[in-house]
Amino acid sequence: MSKAETLWIIPDGYIPPSSCGELVSHESVCVLNTSDQDAEVTIHAYFEDREPLMNMQAIVPARRTRHIRTSSLIAGSERIPPGVPYAMEVRSSVPVYVQYSRLDSTQAENALMSVMAFPVRE
Amino acid sequence: MSKAETLWIIPDGYIPPSSCGELVSHESVCVLNTSDQDAEVTIHAYFEDREPLMNMQAIVPARRTRHIRTSSLIAGSERIPPGVPYAMEVRSSVPVYVQYSRLDSTQAENALMSVMAFPVRE
Amino acid sequence: MSKAETLWIIPDGYIPPSSCGELVSHESVCVLNTSDQDAEVTIHAYFEDREPLMNMQAIVPARRTRHIRTSSLIAGSERIPPGVPYAMEVRSSVPVYVQYSRLDSTQAENALMSVMAFPVRE
Amino acid sequence: MSKAETLWIIPDGYIPPSSCGELVSHESVCVLNTSDQDAEVTIHAYFEDREPLMNMQAIVPARRTRHIRTSSLIAGSERIPPGVPYAMEVRSSVPVYVQYSRLDSTQAENALMSVMAFPVRE
Repeated sequence: MSKAETLWIIPDGYIPPSSCGELVSHESVCVLNTSDQDAEVTIHAYFEDREPLMNMQAIVPARRTRHIRTSSLIAGSERIPPGVPYAMEVRSSVPVYVQYSRLDSTQAENALMSVMAFPVRE
Repeated sequence: MSKAETLWIIPDGYIPPSSCGELVSHESVCVLNTSDQDAEVTIHAYFEDREPLMNMQAIVPARRTRHIRTSSLIAGSERIPPGVPYAMEVRSSVPVYVQYSRLDSTQAENALMSVMAFPVRE
Repeated sequence: MSKAETLWIIPDGYIPPSSCGELVSHESVCVLNTSDQDAEVTIHAYFEDREPLMNMQAIVPARRTRHIRTSSLIAGSERIPPGVPYAMEVRSSVPVYVQYSRLDSTQAENALMSVMAFPVRE
Repeated sequence: MSKAETLWIIPDGYIPPSSCGELVSHESVCVLNTSDQDAEVTIHAYFEDREPLMNMQAIVPARRTRHIRTSSLIAGSERIPPGVPYAMEVRSSVPVYVQYSRLDSTQAENALMSVMAFPVRE
């Protein structure tokens, strides 16, 4: 835990399948790129009972943040299915910082959770 | 905080004893195994006022995640009792990543919390 | 982040002053002592506008966890006041692991948050 | 993760634009300064689609904590806008500890999340 890294791990991924009220259930992979180069971010999703879904892409421009909704990620024609436990490996072409947050409004009121993703030194 | 590890610590364990509504109160120990070998995971539970409950087992296959419900763990004929504060030591035969999350729906709406487990370099 | 430590920091402390429903608002400093020696834990509380409250004590026996309610801590005749932002320094006579969690039931439903405390290598 | 640091990163910032009930939605950057010198804290905010907002200032006196509301920060005449995803870089003139917490009461009940900020060794 000492600098921006190019590989971050999020073991607890889950897209809540339903929502109530004003706020929509969702997960965000929040990436901060303080460098002067655009970051090409590649996300792999691992599941409990099927092969990983590889190489979902996103761009985080130089000196910008992006709070990437996991439901927006695409690998070919596949997406991460809602209502299924999974985990993520987040790779970036330049060192970045990654936090993961989930808002769940399945029941009438919303619940939040957040973790700093786990940085891997390669 | 620099790579997958074989020992992870979760000091705040608690299985909520009751639930309301659609979502069932539970804890998950979320393990990601990105390696090519199956991981044999062994969990010890420590309590405030009794001897630890040792050697509860789970398997996380190669290139898979498992979100292990703590209420499903068994040591002989014993389980982790609900409604009791405890802590966990999570050991794995191969390096993995571990996150801990709890959903509490004791009152009418659900609450969430999550932490990256604490990695121990041995 | 590599082993049990004797100093842990929790910058965001706050004892919610009120509760609704079945669950009582509280904070817990969750300590796991996997060693063979009892841990003497000493907690200092820092405030925004007054001198620190030093040397609140708790014991965590060998091979036990304790989820210490912050409202139970005493320094002489003083306690941590509810409804006031503060921060904690947690020192232990033997290396331990520390997680901090808060349950807030000020409004009708409960909310949870949790962080691994920040380990300091001395 | 081994000592107080002078640079901390929070990738997931968001000021909830509305509140319900007794508790007001807000974020806090919780800084603990255990040193004998006052800390001059400088916060930069990064956005998804505009230039960063630089050099918002706060003071954390020696042996004090401050739970800084992000909505109180000012850069010239500009503030961090509510309802917009952003990220923070927190710099301090002396080593400190930083935790980030959010209370969201957009819907009828409150939700909490908290993370230890990510410490950067420079």
